[in-house]
Amino acid sequence: MSTVVPPLTAAGGEATNPSSKTIVFAADAPLQMECGVILAPFTIAYQTYGVLNAERSNAVLVCHALTGDQHVSNTHPVTGKPGWWETMVGPGRPIDTNSFFVICSNVLGGCMGTTGPAAVNPATGKAFGLEMPIVTIKDMVRAQSMLIDHLGIDQLFCVAGGSMGGMQVLQWAASYPDRIFAALPIATAARHSSQNIAFHEVGRQAVMADPNWRGGRYLEEGTRPEKGLAVARMAAHITYMSDDSLHRKFGRKLQERSAPTFSFDADFQVESYLRHQGSTFVERFDANSYLYVTRAMDYFDLAADYGGLLAKAFRSIKTRFCVVSFNSDWLFPTTESRAIVHALNAGGASVSFVEIDTNKGHDAFLLDIPDLISTTRGFLDSAARARGLKVADAS
Amino acid sequence: MSTVVPPLTAAGGEATNPSSKTIVFAADAPLQMECGVILAPFTIAYQTYGVLNAERSNAVLVCHALTGDQHVSNTHPVTGKPGWWETMVGPGRPIDTNSFFVICSNVLGGCMGTTGPAAVNPATGKAFGLEMPIVTIKDMVRAQSMLIDHLGIDQLFCVAGGSMGGMQVLQWAASYPDRIFAALPIATAARHSSQNIAFHEVGRQAVMADPNWRGGRYLEEGTRPEKGLAVARMAAHITYMSDDSLHRKFGRKLQERSAPTFSFDADFQVESYLRHQGSTFVERFDANSYLYVTRAMDYFDLAADYGGLLAKAFRSIKTRFCVVSFNSDWLFPTTESRAIVHALNAGGASVSFVEIDTNKGHDAFLLDIPDLISTTRGFLDSAARARGLKVADAS
Repeated sequence: MSTVVPPLTAAGGEATNPSSKTIVFAADAPLQMECGVILAPFTIAYQTYGVLNAERSNAVLVCHALTGDQHVSNTHPVTGKPGWWETMVGPGRPIDTNSFFVICSNVLGGCMGTTGPAAVNPATGKAFGLEMPIVTIKDMVRAQSMLIDHLGIDQLFCVAGGSMGGMQVLQWAASYPDRIFAALPIATAARHSSQNIAFHEVGRQAVMADPNWRGGRYLEEGTRPEKGLAVARMAAHITYMSDDSLHRKFGRKLQERSAPTFSFDADFQVESYLRHQGSTFVERFDANSYLYVTRAMDYFDLAADYGGLLAKAFRSIKTRFCVVSFNSDWLFPTTESRAIVHALNAGGASVSFVEIDTNKGHDAFLLDIPDLISTTRGFLDSAARARGLKVADAS
Repeated sequence: MSTVVPPLTAAGGEATNPSSKTIVFAADAPLQMECGVILAPFTIAYQTYGVLNAERSNAVLVCHALTGDQHVSNTHPVTGKPGWWETMVGPGRPIDTNSFFVICSNVLGGCMGTTGPAAVNPATGKAFGLEMPIVTIKDMVRAQSMLIDHLGIDQLFCVAGGSMGGMQVLQWAASYPDRIFAALPIATAARHSSQNIAFHEVGRQAVMADPNWRGGRYLEEGTRPEKGLAVARMAAHITYMSDDSLHRKFGRKLQERSAPTFSFDADFQVESYLRHQGSTFVERFDANSYLYVTRAMDYFDLAADYGGLLAKAFRSIKTRFCVVSFNSDWLFPTTESRAIVHALNAGGASVSFVEIDTNKGHDAFLLDIPDLISTTRGFLDSAARARGLKVADAS
């Protein structure tokens, strides 16, 4: 972790004073939230890469996942690590910043500068904490659409994202079908499953069980529910990998020892790996944001807004879709992607569907998987030609 | 929960003063543990059902799973609920107590009367806590063999168990092949996988993160790490069910409401179910026992004692095996059972193998699954005939 930046939630930290660009929507441009609250003012923090063309037709909106943020393709201001999607976004990458103007905003409820529980509530001068209204995927997308308006873009060339990012892609298609030319939902689902809600609930209970959570008021009280959040992250992290990838990576290998210690030390490499995942996560993520963003995913059920018929969400849509799943992803299995494809087909949409063979599990969408790279490149090149966009030569 | 019994770990509670039969092994009959410790004295608490025949040839040892205990087929003294395997064990059941003498002992490290961290250490007059040496599956089985000696039984007719119970069955076969005529390992593995170690580690971290755990000394200090243990149980419970069974049971159904509350309440039925599983578990299980018994499973790797070759663990074994798996069990998937079967075949053992089709996941071994009932009945009837045992007419 870089030590030159203040902690995430400190005064001057990224949650309230992000290093990203921001747009503040004032009282005359409130956000009508799904829970009934009218949020104003509110802030969106975002990054852009590449250049918007004169026709404003080459914009690609990247939507981030649960613990992601807007730092897609630049050094992360808190961790000092590379952007989370540098395999996919950058010069010569499939989402080529030599051709496209790439936008990514921190989601509503996040903790990297967009309004969320860790940000200071201008009405009180204190962090929102649980005063933040419950956020949904539809709210996140509505806020993004206001950002896109602000940037003067009528139609996005593409909206792309994996996992919760893919949920946002689907919500964009349902809410604003005319505003997206192409859509790339990866490793996602049109509704959060019972098992996934269950895993999220475990994570939330772990956070809330930590006495340092203080009923959500830990920022005011100067504590941090680090242990609870670390446990939540550890449980979630297992679900991001496949049994096979864990086995290949760790098997039953011991951590820097030749025999078991007969203790509760992290004897196995998989244990020390998980503990590391837990402890590094708490440095860059806010516990209340974790509650809010997991909740947004749990509430996601796109068909519910359309009488239970997912196909109705996509009726007569002209957007071109490429739906991608990974065969070892048990958190968002291929069956979920097939349900999306069936609904799109029923709606008469243009869809290609690729199930990629990999043992990497759900996390594959973040990794340098050749089939994902080539699928994305092929889909965007073809869509760009159809849109009449000039595309840089990546070769 | 019954209120007439003292809490599990209180003075007079089941951990130190069980309502089960007990046998105390004194200093002249110590337990040589795998970690190097010589444990003496130590206690085994156990239940029996049915009558041992004159030849002492009709004994069936049932081995319990992680959070099970010796109360296989009687009302549980703490919860007041039926025994955990009444579908399988009882008069007219597949493990028929009209024919067989059924024994089940609480495992070493457990909390229902066998020596474990919640029991009083006679040397100090205080609960063992983390003074309890680390227990392995081999230690559990060695202690059971001393109980079987004590009961005057040379050879068990059968050893049966699911999950961690199945690990004990395999260890019995490896350690004491001549002492078991038949073996029924269900939904188990010959080594704990990386993914399973990872889930256990999350559970342990959740317990240890609870400040009421007090470095393991909560019994002395009058606290209980209930929240941490509940989170551990919740995470584990998800792994006991299949995605499909969770979906069929709960889907996205709301809990006694018609619309989401836009809050962190248990809106979804699966959330309130999990919370209930967590909160009831802490009434009947000791947190330190949870650490010890999960650790025993993590350390289990039967092949490791035989140069990495599982087949060597079963060389020239004469025991008849029936290996059972469930096709929706992702915690102990069928591939693990197949590895056991291959090793048994390589060792020249008599093996039948059944993969049962059910959507119930790992928990199927505890449920009234007709194919499990009929498989067990068929296997035991055939083995009993081969052993020359008279079997009661179950029809």
